[in-house]
Amino acid sequence: MNTTNDLSTLRIHGERLWRSLMELARIGGTDKGGVCRLALTDLDRQGRDLVTRWAREAGMEVTVDRIGNVFMRRPGRNNALPPVMTGSHIDTQPTGGKFDGNYGVLAGLEVVRTLNDHGIETEAPIEVAFWTNEEGSRFVPVMMGSGVFAGAFSLEHAYAATDVDGRTVREELERIGYIGDEEPGQHPMGAYFETHIEQGPVLEDAGVTIGVVPGVLGIRWFDCTVTGMEAHAGPTPMALRRDALQVATTLMQEVVASALRHGPHGRGTVGMVQVHPNSRNVIPGRVKFSIDVRNMSDELVDRQAREIRDLAARLQAQTGLSIVIEPVSTYPAQAFDTGCIQAIERAAQGLGYSHMPVVSGAGHDAVYAARLAPTGMIFIPCKDGISHNEIEDAEPEHITAGCNVLLHVMLERAGL
Amino acid sequence: MNTTNDLSTLRIHGERLWRSLMELARIGGTDKGGVCRLALTDLDRQGRDLVTRWAREAGMEVTVDRIGNVFMRRPGRNNALPPVMTGSHIDTQPTGGKFDGNYGVLAGLEVVRTLNDHGIETEAPIEVAFWTNEEGSRFVPVMMGSGVFAGAFSLEHAYAATDVDGRTVREELERIGYIGDEEPGQHPMGAYFETHIEQGPVLEDAGVTIGVVPGVLGIRWFDCTVTGMEAHAGPTPMALRRDALQVATTLMQEVVASALRHGPHGRGTVGMVQVHPNSRNVIPGRVKFSIDVRNMSDELVDRQAREIRDLAARLQAQTGLSIVIEPVSTYPAQAFDTGCIQAIERAAQGLGYSHMPVVSGAGHDAVYAARLAPTGMIFIPCKDGISHNEIEDAEPEHITAGCNVLLHVMLERAGL
Repeated sequence: MNTTNDLSTLRIHGERLWRSLMELARIGGTDKGGVCRLALTDLDRQGRDLVTRWAREAGMEVTVDRIGNVFMRRPGRNNALPPVMTGSHIDTQPTGGKFDGNYGVLAGLEVVRTLNDHGIETEAPIEVAFWTNEEGSRFVPVMMGSGVFAGAFSLEHAYAATDVDGRTVREELERIGYIGDEEPGQHPMGAYFETHIEQGPVLEDAGVTIGVVPGVLGIRWFDCTVTGMEAHAGPTPMALRRDALQVATTLMQEVVASALRHGPHGRGTVGMVQVHPNSRNVIPGRVKFSIDVRNMSDELVDRQAREIRDLAARLQAQTGLSIVIEPVSTYPAQAFDTGCIQAIERAAQGLGYSHMPVVSGAGHDAVYAARLAPTGMIFIPCKDGISHNEIEDAEPEHITAGCNVLLHVMLERAGL
Repeated sequence: MNTTNDLSTLRIHGERLWRSLMELARIGGTDKGGVCRLALTDLDRQGRDLVTRWAREAGMEVTVDRIGNVFMRRPGRNNALPPVMTGSHIDTQPTGGKFDGNYGVLAGLEVVRTLNDHGIETEAPIEVAFWTNEEGSRFVPVMMGSGVFAGAFSLEHAYAATDVDGRTVREELERIGYIGDEEPGQHPMGAYFETHIEQGPVLEDAGVTIGVVPGVLGIRWFDCTVTGMEAHAGPTPMALRRDALQVATTLMQEVVASALRHGPHGRGTVGMVQVHPNSRNVIPGRVKFSIDVRNMSDELVDRQAREIRDLAARLQAQTGLSIVIEPVSTYPAQAFDTGCIQAIERAAQGLGYSHMPVVSGAGHDAVYAARLAPTGMIFIPCKDGISHNEIEDAEPEHITAGCNVLLHVMLERAGL
């Protein structure tokens, strides 16, 4: 056992962490160097099997709850204390990268391996979690596992979600063998920290190593359906058309325009478009598209949504086409715990890393964890700010730095 | 045999024609009352089998050429004369109607049945054709059978066209048993008439029964691909995005705006859109969409295309995103034969039907036929001007009227 003095010089094993990241990334690895490992697929199972094997090899106990969240536990001296938890997710986007989510999980594992290397025992237990279906690419809602855990929506609601082929979350959890007995949310949690690549360009632009995250932008998701009348493209004079796509494109542009009016943190994205019947010489009769708006406060993000709805109402009145905007998901803006934020700052400072506050534009499992326990997030830069992309990349030195910060905040929180 | 005097009172059997239309429409019939009978599918084969059975029952000989065009022949007194031909197509759009194409084929059959009923022999033979893959929904180019027949493109080019599953025209022709021996274009044709629903609202608006078609609009088809950079929707600040969809929507709106600037016959349609990766929380990295522009003269339609290209060049310079516009198909504007146009007018006049000139906004097999023989087209109204839609509809009295006009122009042309 090292003395407290020695612990200030304690560092994680950066190369080992990097090798684990690269090994996990081979499961679902793509030709372009990314990862396609959608939630609850066979590849997700293989990823889960590998990470839990590593955890057991590090002496951890593994438990699984009914939504497939996995908790990997390193006991403390006083196991009556709630664990200090870290974690993230290992599912990816269809054209995802190697670091999104996976880094947060394997950084936690590396903290445990480092403590094992040095025979360090903590007062409270330490746990590393990975949460089911954070991405929401295959099943909606996103952040499903942590959302059920925090009671944001019910287990039944999550179980019933279907993919494009009609398979349910419950069926797929059973199929891959990751439906546990533990009731979601019953698992104790004393504090929660999550390391993650920034997925934006702020840290890289500023040349700063550690982002201390004050909170996460509020998010609103909608589906918009514009219904006109499909007709033959040639003989239908322009004045008599009911072209759903032309009305839809005006709204798609407003999603972006409204975000620009509510800067600097406003975001607006149309990511998914379905045109019916999608034939070259037929005027589109129906267009469905997704709307994703985000901002720093719930008030601002709701204002963006209201402006889009207002334009939709005007367009409906002008054109006579039906425009329906349906809410899909709502994620409130979430501020993190002041104590956790300050602990992260202190750790970065003590380790000699440059650091700055960076708001998170993306939702994270930490948002739901923050409803149950004091929570903080640690960001590191990613190349060109790009994530949800096969070319997503991060520097080994930043990967190491973020994990060292995690090590020290967890040690401080768990106690020696 | 009737006298020439009696022939002016000769009329087709409207109910029989209607019944045949309804019976053919059951093959591929949809719940909404439309037809989905894509070219060279099993349903297309069933439709072909039914129509050729009817032709044989009416005493006609059936021949098939190498691109699957079918010619159904009623001999004349002088079979050295080239036949007076009529026809159209029996393939449909994915959400097509009962009348588009099918009316032109069955109207020809009804003319023959009527001549048989009255024992009328013509000097020249009469033929009814149906042409392969007019719609182009499954295989590009459209008007494939008549296009190969007219030498607009080669048989090999048509054979190599693939559907979304990678099946070729040649494979599918062989599979359904409609690949004949006759060399396309070797079939003689003295004149060609085609009856068709207008597929636009002009006749209905004017309350007129017969449209005498002076010609067909020129058409240009393009595929446009905008390439940006996919990235996570939340954390990527608006200013640093390379959102392919936002640039694409500006061009989609220009397709329509340019058509409006070149009225009254200008048309502009974006019918097909593919967004990549098409995920709710990923900024689109690539958008591909179709462009369909039409106008009365090749000069006007080329001007529309040039304006769209000019905006694309400006947008590429402004945004740095790549924009590629590739030509897919070009159909020149086509004027019909003055003699045929006048014969149709005379027949409508003699039958006491109201008539007016109506330009065709859609391509038809008659466009290619016009390259080989004097050609004319007869339009009838369709409900609300709607076609390429399951609710496409036409009045029995108009169906009958168009077929009566066809009967008399063919009799005049074929000679007694």
